[in-house]
Amino acid sequence: MDGPDHKGLIYQVTHVLYDHNQNIIRQDEYVSPSGQFYMRTEFEGESDPKKIMDDLHKILPPNINLRLNPKKKKEVVLFVTKEHHCLGELLIRYAFDELDANIQAVISNYNTLQPLVSKFGIPFHYVSHEHRTRQDHEGAILRTLEVYQPEYLVLAKYMRILSSDFVKHYPNRIINIHHSFLPAFIGASPYRQAYERGVKIIGATAHFVNNNLDEGPIIAQDVKEVDHRQTAADMAILGKDTEKSVLSEALKLVFNDRVFIHGNRTILL
Amino acid sequence: MDGPDHKGLIYQVTHVLYDHNQNIIRQDEYVSPSGQFYMRTEFEGESDPKKIMDDLHKILPPNINLRLNPKKKKEVVLFVTKEHHCLGELLIRYAFDELDANIQAVISNYNTLQPLVSKFGIPFHYVSHEHRTRQDHEGAILRTLEVYQPEYLVLAKYMRILSSDFVKHYPNRIINIHHSFLPAFIGASPYRQAYERGVKIIGATAHFVNNNLDEGPIIAQDVKEVDHRQTAADMAILGKDTEKSVLSEALKLVFNDRVFIHGNRTILL
Amino acid sequence: MDGPDHKGLIYQVTHVLYDHNQNIIRQDEYVSPSGQFYMRTEFEGESDPKKIMDDLHKILPPNINLRLNPKKKKEVVLFVTKEHHCLGELLIRYAFDELDANIQAVISNYNTLQPLVSKFGIPFHYVSHEHRTRQDHEGAILRTLEVYQPEYLVLAKYMRILSSDFVKHYPNRIINIHHSFLPAFIGASPYRQAYERGVKIIGATAHFVNNNLDEGPIIAQDVKEVDHRQTAADMAILGKDTEKSVLSEALKLVFNDRVFIHGNRTILL
Amino acid sequence: MDGPDHKGLIYQVTHVLYDHNQNIIRQDEYVSPSGQFYMRTEFEGESDPKKIMDDLHKILPPNINLRLNPKKKKEVVLFVTKEHHCLGELLIRYAFDELDANIQAVISNYNTLQPLVSKFGIPFHYVSHEHRTRQDHEGAILRTLEVYQPEYLVLAKYMRILSSDFVKHYPNRIINIHHSFLPAFIGASPYRQAYERGVKIIGATAHFVNNNLDEGPIIAQDVKEVDHRQTAADMAILGKDTEKSVLSEALKLVFNDRVFIHGNRTILL
Repeated sequence: MDGPDHKGLIYQVTHVLYDHNQNIIRQDEYVSPSGQFYMRTEFEGESDPKKIMDDLHKILPPNINLRLNPKKKKEVVLFVTKEHHCLGELLIRYAFDELDANIQAVISNYNTLQPLVSKFGIPFHYVSHEHRTRQDHEGAILRTLEVYQPEYLVLAKYMRILSSDFVKHYPNRIINIHHSFLPAFIGASPYRQAYERGVKIIGATAHFVNNNLDEGPIIAQDVKEVDHRQTAADMAILGKDTEKSVLSEALKLVFNDRVFIHGNRTILL
Repeated sequence: MDGPDHKGLIYQVTHVLYDHNQNIIRQDEYVSPSGQFYMRTEFEGESDPKKIMDDLHKILPPNINLRLNPKKKKEVVLFVTKEHHCLGELLIRYAFDELDANIQAVISNYNTLQPLVSKFGIPFHYVSHEHRTRQDHEGAILRTLEVYQPEYLVLAKYMRILSSDFVKHYPNRIINIHHSFLPAFIGASPYRQAYERGVKIIGATAHFVNNNLDEGPIIAQDVKEVDHRQTAADMAILGKDTEKSVLSEALKLVFNDRVFIHGNRTILL
Repeated sequence: MDGPDHKGLIYQVTHVLYDHNQNIIRQDEYVSPSGQFYMRTEFEGESDPKKIMDDLHKILPPNINLRLNPKKKKEVVLFVTKEHHCLGELLIRYAFDELDANIQAVISNYNTLQPLVSKFGIPFHYVSHEHRTRQDHEGAILRTLEVYQPEYLVLAKYMRILSSDFVKHYPNRIINIHHSFLPAFIGASPYRQAYERGVKIIGATAHFVNNNLDEGPIIAQDVKEVDHRQTAADMAILGKDTEKSVLSEALKLVFNDRVFIHGNRTILL
Repeated sequence: MDGPDHKGLIYQVTHVLYDHNQNIIRQDEYVSPSGQFYMRTEFEGESDPKKIMDDLHKILPPNINLRLNPKKKKEVVLFVTKEHHCLGELLIRYAFDELDANIQAVISNYNTLQPLVSKFGIPFHYVSHEHRTRQDHEGAILRTLEVYQPEYLVLAKYMRILSSDFVKHYPNRIINIHHSFLPAFIGASPYRQAYERGVKIIGATAHFVNNNLDEGPIIAQDVKEVDHRQTAADMAILGKDTEKSVLSEALKLVFNDRVFIHGNRTILL
């Protein structure tokens, strides 16, 4: 739940759960300096979740948003281009049931990674962008997605910019891994930029996608140390390891309903 | 508060605070796998804290421990031997009011660091251990402490082992910085041991002192990377930087009442 | 090359390479405090490498060891038991030619991971240890290895202890990933041990295998932060991510001939 | 030494040192992708260093730069404004002879830190910038520096931008600590910017000062993890710890003559 802070919010929620004989397993709150309240409560018990929600809606102020997320795997579609490192990581985790998600399909604007995906028995949709307008290409992707109705789209090194029209179909439901340490080196060839700037640390950023490229709320970040011996190509290799671990970490948070979005920031509870 | 978990604990506390018109600023709970409940609640408001405590005691199960910690600086005495790095860090922080504690005095078994301490106008007690039994020496220290009645003793590179008789006077109130990454390399010359083992990472550990040397509950740890070029002496230098930052981090947690102890583990809320 | 330090060693080597019109691409030396000299020189040019080696042998002191390592992929056999995380990582890297090695086969004492291995078209040898003495089991493994004549054995979460008789067949050529931050928590259930000790950091260690379990020269280590909320099971999951990245890093060093062993330490040049 | 790469450079240097009966303690080279050669050689022996340099100049190509740096403490002047954290760290290190430098004086545009500096018996020059043009203010500083003739200026949180005219007096000899992770958040209020962007990692950067603010060659960087609970003020506190350790690390490298500058990058040998 989230919304403007009021005195007694925690009390009201715990009261309802108590009345319904629920056991609180984990509860985390956060109140922002601007007075926004966030709370994530994990509970279990035999009551009907719908009735609990009804009672909560009755007691809580109307400007508080409530979301009920039963513990279940998220349905997701992956987007890739030619790079395999993030995809490979996700497929191995998926194959051994460690992803907290069901990979419904992989969509790519190249067929490069089809052999890898087919090893894991997952549908691969090759939707080329060539000889098409962006609008046409995105239309074809949207039609492909209609079959799956995914909850999240994961851009696992998808190297095309999505239009704001496309993004509007999946508000706060598209996760991207950015090949750099935001806000640094926005745009193309980030490792070339990092090399030329002579940085001693490189990083990667997983974030939600909004209308501005590389500008959505950050979910997870990590860094690795580099030195002068590393070429831009070396940095790219090292960066890929960071990208795949950061993306995995971010997906774990999102798929477990631990991420709140407020403006351009994420609250992780 | 902590104690065995019961259904409704959070509700009961938030209820009482609500009735007293208190505003909860931050609240964190943790329930251990073995069913132990821990909660730290920061609240503010105009009610009498004593009355709030009375009401909480009335409503909560008797096996729940409650502690009321008004926001104030802790009174502490530092123990040192000859190394200055942790002491220097703490004195500078203290001088600029960043320590969340009042350094009442520094006690040392050598007078090496007296000049540094006197720069900051803090009493320095030189209590030599030479030509004395451990019992005599610790007796002299205890008498020195009587004047100050400190809440915490901070062993900022104090190189003498304290007897269990001494430790009993300050249960869970003595914090030590250990020159190694526990549980590795217990005992003397840890950096020599680390060098000979050829480790690629060294660390430091801040922990409460109990009867067994280096075995008390861990509060904070950190590491630094090393390579084959570093001698044992180099590692010691690098290790000192880690020691001082880890000790500072641990003290920040302890002095802000964020540390619960359960058995040999700490819960940081 | 390595051996006791002598004045002029670098000069003698660079002299010979100069005479053979070789271009030095990278050269790193290290002299240990005990006076042992190590140097790794990457060079290229049109001369016959054998003649260069002959000339070096003529000019250098006889107690200097010289090794000529032409740039080529190493031949390796992987050992696994039931855990997939390190194996999956290595297979994906191998499939995309990022491993600097050719995986000849995978040997396991269980057939759990056969499906994963067969996706990548690599021979899988199921050599059960059940109803066999250790000697018999290791004999069967050695016979399996005879076909491949691997340069390195990689224990990618192989949960059987190898006898010193077995290890003697591959001196300094067996690499293991240890599920803990050596020298801490030697032996079984390291994450359980770490949890009970209440550590704030866990890690993993890649090392060469010698006769003593978990005691061989360390090649690479890394750590991750944990807190009180993590159960032993959570730590194990987080630890696996560290294990796979540390093993990859160590193999990159070994397969590129950048690792020297001296006693129980590694020199990485 | 540095300059365009030639075949035989290492051989020529080691030859001359061999002829002079010098013992090479440590030697590191690096050749950039663009063909620039860098080498740092630590050697000891009884020969006259001047004669060695003469012989090197005779044998080496004329476009190779040679620098002879006898092992000695650097003479430095610190610049501060009002923040004490970096200054305190450097003063403590200096007081215990760990800085590899002699602090000749501290210059500040405020007198806030005079009491701290005077504890350590170091001259403090209060050169206010108020009611003065930048040119006047910098002129006054330059006159103050004339007395000391420092080899390096260390901006330990000096919050004034130096003009390019000033910087020209100390080319590649001014070191700054930047309160952010370059190239991110250039300019004022970096922690406010970091907070608003919702980053999960903050950092600090030590770099040489050239004509463009925050754009000179990077010497060292480090980062710390943050989360949504940290306010911009909390981030600033955490950032200060990073700033002081990064500045110390950078100064250690510079004062030990381990830093080469090429264009906008540093080579650390």
